[in-house]
Amino acid sequence: PQDGKTALETARTPNLDALARNGALGLTDPIFPGITPGSGPGHISLFGYDPMVYQIGRGIMEAFGVGMDVTDRDIATRANFATLKDGKIIDRRAGRPPTERNRALIALLSEQIQRIDGVEVRLCSGEEHRFVVVFRGDDLDDRIEDADPGEEGQPAKPAIAKVPEAQRTADIVNKFIARVTEILKDEEPTNSCLVRGFARDPNLPRMSDLFQLNPACVAVYPMYKGLAKLVGMAILPTQIDDTIRDQFHVVREHWNQHDFFFIHIKKIDSYGEDGNFDNRVHVLEDVDEALPELLALQPDVLAVAGDHSTPPSLKAHSWHPVPFLLHGEWVRIDDTTAFGETQCGHGGLGRFPAMFAMPQMLGHALKLDKFGA
Amino acid sequence: PQDGKTALETARTPNLDALARNGALGLTDPIFPGITPGSGPGHISLFGYDPMVYQIGRGIMEAFGVGMDVTDRDIATRANFATLKDGKIIDRRAGRPPTERNRALIALLSEQIQRIDGVEVRLCSGEEHRFVVVFRGDDLDDRIEDADPGEEGQPAKPAIAKVPEAQRTADIVNKFIARVTEILKDEEPTNSCLVRGFARDPNLPRMSDLFQLNPACVAVYPMYKGLAKLVGMAILPTQIDDTIRDQFHVVREHWNQHDFFFIHIKKIDSYGEDGNFDNRVHVLEDVDEALPELLALQPDVLAVAGDHSTPPSLKAHSWHPVPFLLHGEWVRIDDTTAFGETQCGHGGLGRFPAMFAMPQMLGHALKLDKFGA
Repeated sequence: PQDGKTALETARTPNLDALARNGALGLTDPIFPGITPGSGPGHISLFGYDPMVYQIGRGIMEAFGVGMDVTDRDIATRANFATLKDGKIIDRRAGRPPTERNRALIALLSEQIQRIDGVEVRLCSGEEHRFVVVFRGDDLDDRIEDADPGEEGQPAKPAIAKVPEAQRTADIVNKFIARVTEILKDEEPTNSCLVRGFARDPNLPRMSDLFQLNPACVAVYPMYKGLAKLVGMAILPTQIDDTIRDQFHVVREHWNQHDFFFIHIKKIDSYGEDGNFDNRVHVLEDVDEALPELLALQPDVLAVAGDHSTPPSLKAHSWHPVPFLLHGEWVRIDDTTAFGETQCGHGGLGRFPAMFAMPQMLGHALKLDKFGA
Repeated sequence: PQDGKTALETARTPNLDALARNGALGLTDPIFPGITPGSGPGHISLFGYDPMVYQIGRGIMEAFGVGMDVTDRDIATRANFATLKDGKIIDRRAGRPPTERNRALIALLSEQIQRIDGVEVRLCSGEEHRFVVVFRGDDLDDRIEDADPGEEGQPAKPAIAKVPEAQRTADIVNKFIARVTEILKDEEPTNSCLVRGFARDPNLPRMSDLFQLNPACVAVYPMYKGLAKLVGMAILPTQIDDTIRDQFHVVREHWNQHDFFFIHIKKIDSYGEDGNFDNRVHVLEDVDEALPELLALQPDVLAVAGDHSTPPSLKAHSWHPVPFLLHGEWVRIDDTTAFGETQCGHGGLGRFPAMFAMPQMLGHALKLDKFGA
């Protein structure tokens, strides 16, 4: 707003500010300076993984977003309803159908297409024209070019195998598109589909192997539960409409069963994407108000972090470095007095790649051995 | 202490503070954020080497610690006196014998075991149960598993070659252990030994080759002289009880023979490990008081650095980022006013890997060429 303060700096957050005074602040770069991360790399970097090495395909992220499971035998893809006319794709989003229409079409397709050549086909609606297809079977391969001409007025493009091993999977995808186009032939504008972002489980090493932790996730949105599952976290039970206080209660109930808790607060991000500065401020104040319940558990180390910035003025994820707060017995206290972007910019932790948040949390919890003699 | 200040922030250091005002501060990470370094990687990163690439084995560090030379033909190992009973190691530290007893046993063993299969065996006492064995000969190989069961109540474990080329060395080590056990058979509890940490000279590139420097070391403790020798520094003559002022005098005497001086002040670290906050403060004040003698030499660049933090409250090396001060004609002066961890946290140099200290020193001394056209 006019006063130049961010939502975090505008919010009244006495508890977070007290943690800043008794802890240390810094700024993280999720990928590297200037790069805007998606939610996948934004999170796995905070989980201690190099996001340039461990990449999570779009199909997997979409499947997580709608709450689908993905196993080692699956290829997940993002799909659109599209409008086909005279062999050409004339609308890649099929006129953005209402989500209810999408649901009805997916129900119909799910009934009619359950298997292709022995491969299980699972469908799930997204918003408007979007849906997710997961192919489950043996020896599938995700090295396939998008079945999407990329622009309108072009002929429909089949899935094309990039390597011979992916030919069978590409054939199955093309049979799927043909079946959809056959079933929906009288449903213009939603009379065909595009399928893209072919991706399998990236087989990330588990946090239990990497860090000897027994980690748990307390998130309410499917995408973040999916990401947590990818790195081997236990997914603790939550409801989509849980409050922040509810989430903290879940942590408390499982406090003795795990030694690492990832608590994901969704709405700070959502209100940023909506450009709703005031509500963003309110959610931050809600976090602050509920915080004593978490602090009462006396964690060895508490880190308050973000997977990316989402300035309400930009209404999107951004590349700006992200506030980071570290609190715990062994933290060297800096001279910051409140949790906010400006103070984070001269905190004692400096600016660092987000993938180094995890070793710092572990170090301050006295969980790491010395390197070298 | 109660006021939240570190020893460096508590110490009265008007000369260092003046350097901060006329120079720039920052924080270094010896390895990467969160990781506690041993003295080996802590130092070689400050010497400009990537500590993840150039690793120095434990046996080498132990040999340096007791002041033994290590050449290209040597395998250095760390050893313990141990108690053997009915074929089992029942005490891995042989009841922690007095160091004098250790010295007497090593004198006896040195006399009786001088060569095995043509390989020279050199022994040196450490504290209590610890000693160092250096094997010197041709074609020795350090790829050997520790001859140490790792826990008590287990059978004695021989040295085992990890690769066929190390078989001969493993055989010699096992003959050594057999000889020791034979000679000490009536000396229970110090009637056997464990040998581990097999390591050879890592053959680091020399600083003269890397940086075209003619560097010299002014340290009083053997370990740091050993590390300096590894990177090709000349070791200037010092006594173990030299004062800081004495060390600065050694620099002055050799000022025209070298263009880089590594001056190691041991006691700041020692008092940290002892948890002696007050004495740590006093040593820092001693450094400050003697500093004008060093400044009188008018170095082009002066860097004040540490190989790791050693918080007296932790009584051990730690992962915390380390204060760094840079002073010289071409340093861009920041707005810091005193040398201490908090001000380093918002100094003009920011937080950076310690291996970049050396290129920054060289750069500010106008000793580096432009990279690229």
